[in-house]
Amino acid sequence: MAILTPEQIHDMHAYWEASNYLAAAQIYLQANPLLKEPLLPEHIKPRLLGHWGTSPGLNFIYVHLNRLIRDTNASILFVCGPGHGAPAVMANVYMEGTYTETYPDITQDEKGLKQFFRQFSSPGGIPSHVSPHTPGSIHEGGELGYSLAHAAGAVMDNPDLITACVVGDGEAETGPLAGSWKLNSFLNPVRDGAVLPILHLNGYKISGPTVMGRMSDTRLATLFAGYGYMPLFVKAKETEEVHQEMAAALDTAYQQIREIQDNARSSKKHTESLHWPMIILRSPKGWTGPVMWKGKRIEGTFRSHQVPLMDVKEDQDQLALLEQWLRSYKPETHFTPEGRLLPSLAQLAPTGDKRMGANPYANGGKTVQPLDMPDFSLYAVEVTKPGVTIAECTRELGKMLRDVFKLNAESSNFRLFCPDETTSNRLNAVFEATDRCFMEPLLDDDDHLSPDGRVLEVLSEHLCQGWLEGYLLTGRHGIFPCYEAFVTIVDSMFNQHAKWLKMCLEIPWRNDLPSLNYLITSHSWRQDHNGYSHQGPGFIDTVVNKKSSVIRIYLPPDANCLLSVMDHCLKSKNYVNLVVAGKQPALQWLNIAQATAHCAQGASVWDWASNDNHEKPDVVLACAGDVPTLETIAAAWLLRKHIPDLKVRVVNVVDLMSLSPKDYHSHGLETALFTELFTDDAPVIFAFHGYVRIVHDLVHGRPDPARFHVRGFIEEGTTTTPFDMVVLNKISRFHLAIAAIERTEKTLEKGDAVISLFENKLRMHSIYIRECLEDMPDIKNWKWEDLK
Amino acid sequence: MAILTPEQIHDMHAYWEASNYLAAAQIYLQANPLLKEPLLPEHIKPRLLGHWGTSPGLNFIYVHLNRLIRDTNASILFVCGPGHGAPAVMANVYMEGTYTETYPDITQDEKGLKQFFRQFSSPGGIPSHVSPHTPGSIHEGGELGYSLAHAAGAVMDNPDLITACVVGDGEAETGPLAGSWKLNSFLNPVRDGAVLPILHLNGYKISGPTVMGRMSDTRLATLFAGYGYMPLFVKAKETEEVHQEMAAALDTAYQQIREIQDNARSSKKHTESLHWPMIILRSPKGWTGPVMWKGKRIEGTFRSHQVPLMDVKEDQDQLALLEQWLRSYKPETHFTPEGRLLPSLAQLAPTGDKRMGANPYANGGKTVQPLDMPDFSLYAVEVTKPGVTIAECTRELGKMLRDVFKLNAESSNFRLFCPDETTSNRLNAVFEATDRCFMEPLLDDDDHLSPDGRVLEVLSEHLCQGWLEGYLLTGRHGIFPCYEAFVTIVDSMFNQHAKWLKMCLEIPWRNDLPSLNYLITSHSWRQDHNGYSHQGPGFIDTVVNKKSSVIRIYLPPDANCLLSVMDHCLKSKNYVNLVVAGKQPALQWLNIAQATAHCAQGASVWDWASNDNHEKPDVVLACAGDVPTLETIAAAWLLRKHIPDLKVRVVNVVDLMSLSPKDYHSHGLETALFTELFTDDAPVIFAFHGYVRIVHDLVHGRPDPARFHVRGFIEEGTTTTPFDMVVLNKISRFHLAIAAIERTEKTLEKGDAVISLFENKLRMHSIYIRECLEDMPDIKNWKWEDLK
Repeated sequence: MAILTPEQIHDMHAYWEASNYLAAAQIYLQANPLLKEPLLPEHIKPRLLGHWGTSPGLNFIYVHLNRLIRDTNASILFVCGPGHGAPAVMANVYMEGTYTETYPDITQDEKGLKQFFRQFSSPGGIPSHVSPHTPGSIHEGGELGYSLAHAAGAVMDNPDLITACVVGDGEAETGPLAGSWKLNSFLNPVRDGAVLPILHLNGYKISGPTVMGRMSDTRLATLFAGYGYMPLFVKAKETEEVHQEMAAALDTAYQQIREIQDNARSSKKHTESLHWPMIILRSPKGWTGPVMWKGKRIEGTFRSHQVPLMDVKEDQDQLALLEQWLRSYKPETHFTPEGRLLPSLAQLAPTGDKRMGANPYANGGKTVQPLDMPDFSLYAVEVTKPGVTIAECTRELGKMLRDVFKLNAESSNFRLFCPDETTSNRLNAVFEATDRCFMEPLLDDDDHLSPDGRVLEVLSEHLCQGWLEGYLLTGRHGIFPCYEAFVTIVDSMFNQHAKWLKMCLEIPWRNDLPSLNYLITSHSWRQDHNGYSHQGPGFIDTVVNKKSSVIRIYLPPDANCLLSVMDHCLKSKNYVNLVVAGKQPALQWLNIAQATAHCAQGASVWDWASNDNHEKPDVVLACAGDVPTLETIAAAWLLRKHIPDLKVRVVNVVDLMSLSPKDYHSHGLETALFTELFTDDAPVIFAFHGYVRIVHDLVHGRPDPARFHVRGFIEEGTTTTPFDMVVLNKISRFHLAIAAIERTEKTLEKGDAVISLFENKLRMHSIYIRECLEDMPDIKNWKWEDLK
Repeated sequence: MAILTPEQIHDMHAYWEASNYLAAAQIYLQANPLLKEPLLPEHIKPRLLGHWGTSPGLNFIYVHLNRLIRDTNASILFVCGPGHGAPAVMANVYMEGTYTETYPDITQDEKGLKQFFRQFSSPGGIPSHVSPHTPGSIHEGGELGYSLAHAAGAVMDNPDLITACVVGDGEAETGPLAGSWKLNSFLNPVRDGAVLPILHLNGYKISGPTVMGRMSDTRLATLFAGYGYMPLFVKAKETEEVHQEMAAALDTAYQQIREIQDNARSSKKHTESLHWPMIILRSPKGWTGPVMWKGKRIEGTFRSHQVPLMDVKEDQDQLALLEQWLRSYKPETHFTPEGRLLPSLAQLAPTGDKRMGANPYANGGKTVQPLDMPDFSLYAVEVTKPGVTIAECTRELGKMLRDVFKLNAESSNFRLFCPDETTSNRLNAVFEATDRCFMEPLLDDDDHLSPDGRVLEVLSEHLCQGWLEGYLLTGRHGIFPCYEAFVTIVDSMFNQHAKWLKMCLEIPWRNDLPSLNYLITSHSWRQDHNGYSHQGPGFIDTVVNKKSSVIRIYLPPDANCLLSVMDHCLKSKNYVNLVVAGKQPALQWLNIAQATAHCAQGASVWDWASNDNHEKPDVVLACAGDVPTLETIAAAWLLRKHIPDLKVRVVNVVDLMSLSPKDYHSHGLETALFTELFTDDAPVIFAFHGYVRIVHDLVHGRPDPARFHVRGFIEEGTTTTPFDMVVLNKISRFHLAIAAIERTEKTLEKGDAVISLFENKLRMHSIYIRECLEDMPDIKNWKWEDLK
């Protein structure tokens, strides 16, 4: 099948050689960039870093995708799963010109080439992986497994986009990648673009073989047919043939994609069990690199994973082999003496935004359209008095989210990603505006299920996270509601995304991106029915560790605060917003005006629960999180009832980072305000939703941190009652009240007696609980006005 | 194909009915356990909890596995992927008698039944998921995705064991589970047992459909053929047929497993591309449960996921439907009037250790054989003087691990699990004793690869963790070396394992288990070559949050400390040991005797680096972690050189938890010793390997915590030099020395001048680094003896 003319093959092969040269040269050279002189040890970098093994295959794919783009004018986003393949991606964005446009110092001449080689993987230069510095990339190399999920997220609601996603056979062994193949069950060819997976089998990881690399073509074809793909195989072989094969595979794949899309879009019906194309490319690891060294095979083995020849500076023979290898790419033929890629080759790249390094979606901030947001106060829960109204916070939020879907239906730029928990998390009002998305056969008993749904439910936190990331990085908006204990499944994905955002802030040409919004509900304290495996607030700790410029953590104590916080989050950019809020019926504290002011300040005194009359209190009862707030309010009430001469102040914290010194986080309260809330020296009994250590840390640097006595989740839990959960973790109203009495310096006449009383309540609880007699004591009918 | 006689079918069906009855009754009943009276609202529990949907399918599988065991005398371990299926597992271990043997209060009579029902999912009772409380289980329900990995780990080196692993179609959507199907590439039928996956498709998750549930048989068969399985399909249908089908499938699967094993074991050669059996069972969700309620289908839909009828206490019609449902299982026919399972049914269960609830491997501590450990001091690096010898810590450890493999070769009870990084982590001495394990075709260029290898390298941290957990939970030993940044991939798996261990400690009949040992190397500070995506010490934070009784964290500063620590960890039980140690050439500080003493105490003053003459120092320089230790030593030297009148004390912390108050962690230093090391009030400049917040937390509760000024990783990194990494994160020797001068209360004549000098050094560094001129300044030749 002759797709390419002999001239095309000649030129494309030359282009490939040039890119292979640039990839290898980035690893090795600090001088003599065009090999005009014989290669000498001083031309070699002092420290050899970079990954050769995957690079030639990536270069091969890139030149062929360029050809496809020129022939079809398709908009193709390149996702490079083998993140270590930076030398290849860099070579190509340099050759197509986007690199120089982005970084004008790296010119298209000999001087620019030298600088281009030197900066790679050098101190003060650029990272060794594909990173936010790389034009055209939405996908960091390093931690493997997320390329295909990113690729899928990127094409959602981008009907004209194709993401060419290279998956390495190392990466293919990871769980998240193995779970990503099911994207065909969720991508709708009517409204979404397409992913073209290119599985690149080069057989080895760092030092061992890959599982898929050793599978026969038959087994692979079978496997991927099961996932809904029709693989097209391309195998490294003699020059002409391999180029023809790859070109044919790409043409076929492209036609199949367009055919599926055209059929779907003309009939507007989805065809079940579509077979999407994918390409499986088998090539030797380190393809075209040095073949042997001292009797050991390099090309085609793990020995070419990173730097195939390490001793070139010291070993003359190795240096000669390196020179021979580099010269095999004929740089003098492909570049002008001034160091410019020959025009006949340069013209093989697409132009303008069609260059993969310049694809606008890869710098999603360029294309972002802000969400049309409803007025959040419209969804306010009426609260005439604190602690009387009962509401389910997430259910109220669901109504606002429903209208976000409605208002932005035309823009098609908002989605909700969730592991089958939208209803469980009581956000089901969204189903008044949209459905769950599903491309497999539908049945009569299905509930709000259709190919057009904008709620993506898949029982994989990895996919929810990866799809959402891909969606955000290409300039759209979204939210990820998740059970608190299980969101730690994506700790490491969050880490990498937060790193990406942090670096983007340092790169001027990267435009602002919509924030990643987590709604953590079904949280630890109210997983009393599900038990210990569902109880764990550790995700807050993971988030708080990341760069303060990109992380925000909110613990709205009630529905109106949740509305205010989420409105803010959905409008924000460049952050990861972590919002922790309950779904169970709970007492409401603030009306919408109070809530808005409270959230704006981050933390406030709740006067109605305090009896300090704005004077210095004997003890501060602070709280963050809905359940800790309830217990703190109850503790304040108990203290005021039983020991009215103890001056108690209640402080609620909704913005966790407001606790930190301002020089650490921009949300940190000014010192004067911090002191106004917490005093400089009064004991603080702090009831916290998560593990205590965060608070211990955040107040380090505040006046007298040792006076903060924090209660939180101490890994005690089981299937029990909500109130038993707070008792087991020693954060109940009685525990807090006892701690307040014990920590105050004031001499309290009745202190010991009241401690005895509360301890007795706890003893009774532990008897009751065994008899299943008691749930959380209600405080709804407590009369504040009777208190002094 | 008639496998079963009509009598067998009758009895097995009755057994199934009895187990379905017990499953449903656990969810609903608190009285009237045998329905001797008409069902009344007061017989119903006050709070209805539990998951019905998956239970009848699990019960069906269980009764059929019982039949297989009785017919073959096989040792079968049951892993229940659908963790919400506790009602079923509980029903079966009760019926086979293991539950009563384990918990004698839950008798085999009406009173016992009532108690059995009441305790389920009740406060003071037992959790709603399969948990450590459940006899026969090594696998907690709740967080989904790890059943198949646990199953594979369990059969490694247990040649006679078969793990029957039920995988739910919800769980099958997760990444880790999707990645687990490749176990056939790593299980060796000569030496390992077999996993029999039973994929249970009931079509729905909480409220949406499952991907695999909607795939056709053909597509599923194709998919699993790709993974190396030959699926046997069983579909819910009319009574006789479905029992025959399931019995035939199990018989076939069992014969195929034995055939593969017999062939492999007689020829002692492994046959490539084996096709292992698996079973795919399609059944309605909530099979045999209520069919419809108010015109909506329950059986076969998501509506039977949890409690299918929620209003039975209030709604007479619903109560009637519940009664009809429960009576459809004919409890009066299957149980004696005294509440005992009919002997004719009870005899269907296997006996003794062959009962799945009594399988000894499920309480791995019963079968554990301690490792034969070499004397770790034999591997000592000779250190005649601190700070002169250079060694790679993990390379030294590798020699010890090699001999652990050798000494325990016969017991076959030690494995190393690692994502293809054994050599990269410089532990490759182990390959003198064993190979990497691989069951796919081998090639000439492969390096230490064989089906018999005891090093499991798979590029999936999830699989490494899951396999190791399965291996440990069945009583063997292992170690998981991992890149620090990427071990956070398994944060949530670690969480669940730590929870499992914590609960096991509270359950008397659970025997002690070997610890899970992480070796975190390729750590953040020395990923200077790989860049920011490889830099993140957050796993320490995840570990430290778990119950103090089960976690241990060590940061050995040099090779001899690492040997001592790892010797201790490999001998320990019931812990998760996190060991952070470098692989790069590094200065060594302690000889083996000093190292052993240092590790035993947890933290010590390093006199040779201090000039306080055991008097009160002006400042304490504390450190934990190899790179922070190097910088601290250098800072001490710089201070002593430039400001000899400043009294400096150096304290190294190897056991992180030694910092915490003793009432929090048993490794906490006694108050007197803590004061002896850190004084009560001297400023402490603490250079820490991880994020600062851990230290802020651990010293909370120690005298004057505000004096601890901690430096750690502040999310600054890129591809650069090792020394630049410490500069970027403000933890370099100069930063530490400046902090020491600034924090001391002593008036230092030369203080400002020396600060200027050090600041100038840092300015020079930032110029140098851009010119690639400088790496980490060497301190090897610094002369301590010249200092005062």
